[in-house]
Amino acid sequence: MSPKILRINMSDLSSKWEDLPNEYETFAGRALTSSIVAKEVDPTCDPLGKFNKLVIAPGLLAGTTAPSSGRLSVGGKSPLTGGIKEANAGGLTGGKLGRLGINAIIIEGKLPSDTTDWYSILVQKDKCEIKKTSNYANMGLYNLIKKVWEDYPSKPGIIGCGIAGQRLSLCAGVFGNNIENSDPGRFAGRGGLGAVFGSKRIIAVITDDSGGEMPQAKDKEKFDSGRKKFVEALRKHPITGDLKDADGNPFGGLKNYGTNVLMNILSEAGALPTRNFSSGRFEGAAKISGEAVHELVDKVKEKLGDKSTGTYGHPCHPGCLIACSNVVPYEDSGEHHVGCLEYESAWALGANCGIDVLTDVTELNRLCNDIGLDTIEAGNTIAMFMEGGIIDLGDGPAAINLLKEAYNEKSVAGRLICSGTLVAGKTLGVTRIPVVKGQAQPAYDPRAIKGIGVTYSTTPMGADHTAGYTIAAEILGIKGKVTDPRSIEKSALSLTFQATTAFIDSMGYCLFIAFCILDDDNGFAGMMDTVNGFLGKDIDAGAYGTNILKQERSFNMKAGFTEKDDRLAEFFYNEPLPPHNVVFDVSDEELDKVYKNL
Amino acid sequence: MSPKILRINMSDLSSKWEDLPNEYETFAGRALTSSIVAKEVDPTCDPLGKFNKLVIAPGLLAGTTAPSSGRLSVGGKSPLTGGIKEANAGGLTGGKLGRLGINAIIIEGKLPSDTTDWYSILVQKDKCEIKKTSNYANMGLYNLIKKVWEDYPSKPGIIGCGIAGQRLSLCAGVFGNNIENSDPGRFAGRGGLGAVFGSKRIIAVITDDSGGEMPQAKDKEKFDSGRKKFVEALRKHPITGDLKDADGNPFGGLKNYGTNVLMNILSEAGALPTRNFSSGRFEGAAKISGEAVHELVDKVKEKLGDKSTGTYGHPCHPGCLIACSNVVPYEDSGEHHVGCLEYESAWALGANCGIDVLTDVTELNRLCNDIGLDTIEAGNTIAMFMEGGIIDLGDGPAAINLLKEAYNEKSVAGRLICSGTLVAGKTLGVTRIPVVKGQAQPAYDPRAIKGIGVTYSTTPMGADHTAGYTIAAEILGIKGKVTDPRSIEKSALSLTFQATTAFIDSMGYCLFIAFCILDDDNGFAGMMDTVNGFLGKDIDAGAYGTNILKQERSFNMKAGFTEKDDRLAEFFYNEPLPPHNVVFDVSDEELDKVYKNL
Repeated sequence: MSPKILRINMSDLSSKWEDLPNEYETFAGRALTSSIVAKEVDPTCDPLGKFNKLVIAPGLLAGTTAPSSGRLSVGGKSPLTGGIKEANAGGLTGGKLGRLGINAIIIEGKLPSDTTDWYSILVQKDKCEIKKTSNYANMGLYNLIKKVWEDYPSKPGIIGCGIAGQRLSLCAGVFGNNIENSDPGRFAGRGGLGAVFGSKRIIAVITDDSGGEMPQAKDKEKFDSGRKKFVEALRKHPITGDLKDADGNPFGGLKNYGTNVLMNILSEAGALPTRNFSSGRFEGAAKISGEAVHELVDKVKEKLGDKSTGTYGHPCHPGCLIACSNVVPYEDSGEHHVGCLEYESAWALGANCGIDVLTDVTELNRLCNDIGLDTIEAGNTIAMFMEGGIIDLGDGPAAINLLKEAYNEKSVAGRLICSGTLVAGKTLGVTRIPVVKGQAQPAYDPRAIKGIGVTYSTTPMGADHTAGYTIAAEILGIKGKVTDPRSIEKSALSLTFQATTAFIDSMGYCLFIAFCILDDDNGFAGMMDTVNGFLGKDIDAGAYGTNILKQERSFNMKAGFTEKDDRLAEFFYNEPLPPHNVVFDVSDEELDKVYKNL
Repeated sequence: MSPKILRINMSDLSSKWEDLPNEYETFAGRALTSSIVAKEVDPTCDPLGKFNKLVIAPGLLAGTTAPSSGRLSVGGKSPLTGGIKEANAGGLTGGKLGRLGINAIIIEGKLPSDTTDWYSILVQKDKCEIKKTSNYANMGLYNLIKKVWEDYPSKPGIIGCGIAGQRLSLCAGVFGNNIENSDPGRFAGRGGLGAVFGSKRIIAVITDDSGGEMPQAKDKEKFDSGRKKFVEALRKHPITGDLKDADGNPFGGLKNYGTNVLMNILSEAGALPTRNFSSGRFEGAAKISGEAVHELVDKVKEKLGDKSTGTYGHPCHPGCLIACSNVVPYEDSGEHHVGCLEYESAWALGANCGIDVLTDVTELNRLCNDIGLDTIEAGNTIAMFMEGGIIDLGDGPAAINLLKEAYNEKSVAGRLICSGTLVAGKTLGVTRIPVVKGQAQPAYDPRAIKGIGVTYSTTPMGADHTAGYTIAAEILGIKGKVTDPRSIEKSALSLTFQATTAFIDSMGYCLFIAFCILDDDNGFAGMMDTVNGFLGKDIDAGAYGTNILKQERSFNMKAGFTEKDDRLAEFFYNEPLPPHNVVFDVSDEELDKVYKNL
């Protein structure tokens, strides 16, 4: 099984297989998507035009037995930011591509502008078909996934775009399907890459790995021993582990409460952006927190037994030990409402809109998943509709009705709600628009936690917490030591996180391994042995990550970005954030140091 | 009477008078607005935030007897482009400010964000009042002007913003009132400066020049002789003159047909952007042309006599000899429908939307005037709604209903139609968005006429024909010689026009003097003698203009623009324009030459 690239040209509906160029030998995931985009895409091109390309690449370890390593990267020039983009997610497709020996799928070209047909790409062992599937258009994604699994009973991995992407909406995410249900909740959500799918007139890439085989490590012994060491470290870490207290009750943050364990923590810290970043504390935080989801799941399970689909400690892809995902059930029927409700989503659709009703937040998330929207961008966009006076702050039912407008192609409100925070904010006369490079900020207010503001400002991705999650140091602490969140010298911290993240995103690892590898030297060693054992050669994680950042930064500069784009919106510098009444006071010089020091 | 600057600070509702700094001695109009903005405004600031300033400056010759020189410049950082902006218009205010000896009004600061009051600025001889006029809010501008003239029976000059500006909409223009009627049709329309008025919570600047006096030339003799020479040249030029043929019938383009004399000419040339820039020829051009307006005016006058208000050959400001303006009457009643219907407006709201019904186009223009919208931006935005599938191409009544949505503050479609071409295009999934630096292109397709494409691309103003009107050379010809519109070496031509325009915009002259001064050496000499006689010193028009461009360019670079922003949208390079099937093939190097050679 030799590594291969599948290149699909939509201009003439052709496909071909190519070898992986030698220069990409150790590249996978984000390293591969960003390298291919940097090499093959004109940085000044129209992201929705024929010169942009969509690159899909599983992480290096996808399909192996390495723990929590099945994530899939999607890259291209972002319609939302105008810069290079990589977004990744769990789901089924990463591992399946790994088992088919496919390193990357490159989708290029564009059908004539009067084309009305829609297509899907069926990827099988040594085989690719570009199929006309106009019947998949205009469907909600819950139904689409059911339909595809009916059409392909092998339960393939599916990624693609929903109606938002089909209409080229700027906050359209790339969905992926869950392991065992038809929830499209595995989103490579950010940057509008779903609209690039739409521009190529592709609804789904369907990956059936029948006949595929597990990728083999070059140094099997090193790989296996590393893997074991790493699994052990993950299992005993209080954030990623599966621990029980003295009474046998589970504790450990992610498995029990999911990422949404952060809701109360951030609100306590005064850093939970509330009502469009006008406060750092939300009085309704507890009601939409991970603890509330946990309680709901238990309560419905108690009432309805096996009829309830609700769960926590659920993996986002096969082989994930961290299992931070969940399924939120409808309280009355126990049926699947959404899977999963993440912290960022619950924050964006909840606290940031002043909504404290868990079922409303869950319903908003379900609608985003069904339409194919990035929840972070959607929540911030709803907040623009609130601040712009179209609906009331905190009005969950109004927000739900607004999102439902998206099903109506002729509804201007429906189009605008899918167009992202910057466009909606500008349209509605809002001046407090929390974006960097056109992308909305996630769930940590940079006035209260400066390092994440440095990441938001400087990452080539646009405001993105996952691009350099300094929160790990500034709130949760590393080896028991918390870096002062108010300290304003954070360029080095942010750069370290950005580079490490770029490496992690390339391996296919989940970002949450960071807690373990930062805290536990054995965890780090085990993780690196797994990677190096698989490759049969030693790579340096820092240098590897830095190289990716350099390429991404260079792409953006060629696209016309300058250091002026590495800044937060004006109000973060001028409007003090309650309750601590702090502003963002990191200097431009400190921000510019990040990439000057690269 | 010493020259003075009126500085208004909206943060504390204070005002003060300042001397004109020596460095600005010869500066007026655009030279003054751009210099003050470049010196006082942080290029990276939020255009709708407290750090932006609005600068209002009459041309140098405002209020004098120099012909066609009463235009008023408005400047600031543009909410639409994010760059420096100057827009100018005729109307009453320029001359009145000149007679009050006011060189510039600078409006800075911002009231607290929870302010709900609206204000107007009353400017009188040596006096300024900031008046609370919340009763002027949410009014159509036709009614507003009537109301202000009732409140101030001296019939003052009025400039300000309509409901679009009050809601911070990105294509809100700055209106000015007509000489003798309540039409708000004298728009400094481009770049969304009306929204800057709105952000300062100012609806109107009301200028009453009672007690003012005509500014005196330093070298009266030179001024007078220059003026006479220039008047003579303007009168005998076939474009700007008031000529009769052998039968005593008037001919001469502008007086008879207004700027809209260009509609048929550009369509014939295959350069009239039609249906969102998908063709260069519009089969309905004649029906919405200046000739059609002329015919309508004559017909209604014949039918209704003095009951008809329709007219052509109407001046946009007192003392204009060119008089290219018009009043389009309602056909049945003879009442004032709109004044005036310009070529750019008839094109944007007509040909570019595929609408060929003159009354529909006139009604769309009236709605833009009433709401306070730039017609070029509004027409292009309507075209986005058509291409995006919300209304049908060519459907005038649907376009009218769409614009009427703007009166309803809660209507998302109403907000979007006021937000400009880029934002609407992105919202509606349109990929053919004809903007440069976020501003929509005017009525000359750059694929068929390359020089104007060089101007669109490179001017610091965003796509703007008035910034460097190479059409004069490429279509109409200079001294009988037409520069080949298809030639792709146009950097020098565009730069010459850009610099000359910057000079003309500073003097208060109408851009249309260009035809006369380019064709007739006596005209040029007379014009320069008028200027130099007024100043009592000789200035060099080219150096003067170049200096302005340098400051504007420098502001934009500091704001984060790069040469990558000096490009047309991708489709102009790739999609051939019928009927000549040409693309925009000016090289990036040639475009970059314009400002490298500055």
